[in-house]
Amino acid sequence: MKFLHSMIRVYDVQKSIDFYTKLFGLKLSRQADLEDCTLYYLKDEITGVEIELTANFEKPEDKYVKGEAFGHFAFEVENISEFSNKLKSLGYEYIFEPFEIVLKTKDGLDKLKVAFLHDPDGNEIEVIEKK
Amino acid sequence: MKFLHSMIRVYDVQKSIDFYTKLFGLKLSRQADLEDCTLYYLKDEITGVEIELTANFEKPEDKYVKGEAFGHFAFEVENISEFSNKLKSLGYEYIFEPFEIVLKTKDGLDKLKVAFLHDPDGNEIEVIEKK
Repeated sequence: MKFLHSMIRVYDVQKSIDFYTKLFGLKLSRQADLEDCTLYYLKDEITGVEIELTANFEKPEDKYVKGEAFGHFAFEVENISEFSNKLKSLGYEYIFEPFEIVLKTKDGLDKLKVAFLHDPDGNEIEVIEKK
Repeated sequence: MKFLHSMIRVYDVQKSIDFYTKLFGLKLSRQADLEDCTLYYLKDEITGVEIELTANFEKPEDKYVKGEAFGHFAFEVENISEFSNKLKSLGYEYIFEPFEIVLKTKDGLDKLKVAFLHDPDGNEIEVIEKK
């Protein structure tokens, strides 16, 4: 058994493709049509997992309603300062600028540099600097 | 850059751990405490990606509210009939029993055997038979 993908419904598919491919390096690997929607697969070539974007032909008036059950997607970046420059040069913004988070684990304290932003549909995205 | 995890907030963390480890073979790889929650990481050892379960100390009265923006997680299984037997022996149920889905792609029709179920918090899970 293998984890394949996480699916999200997107309002403006081109905006979402731009966001995930330009900012996080995912690749648009394929697309497929169903009766009522088109599916776009954005692949992370390191792990092989995908984010499946569902672009329904019939959309809500504004964006899709977000609940509180799903939290976020997290991506690892080599250097969060360099990532911040890239983010700003592409016209995106953080909702929380990089900060240090301290996790208590059985092996002691684990300090991580993280930041948060929104994807074009308002889904939360966590960026974590590689240790 | 690398996809690390998808985070979901869970109500009864032991139920969620049982579901994802027993049914899909994810491994509880580590856990960590923050001020207001405990995080549990369930790793897919094939891809290395994780589902991060957030167990908040302060919970809503019932389950977390699900929106329509997040769709589902998808897992690949070798044989969907064998998976169905395992699912039932573990006391879980489908919301949609296995059926064939036909995707229109640029290379023609792509037929997949899929089924859907809910995780303990009501998040949709898609099961796709390996081709």
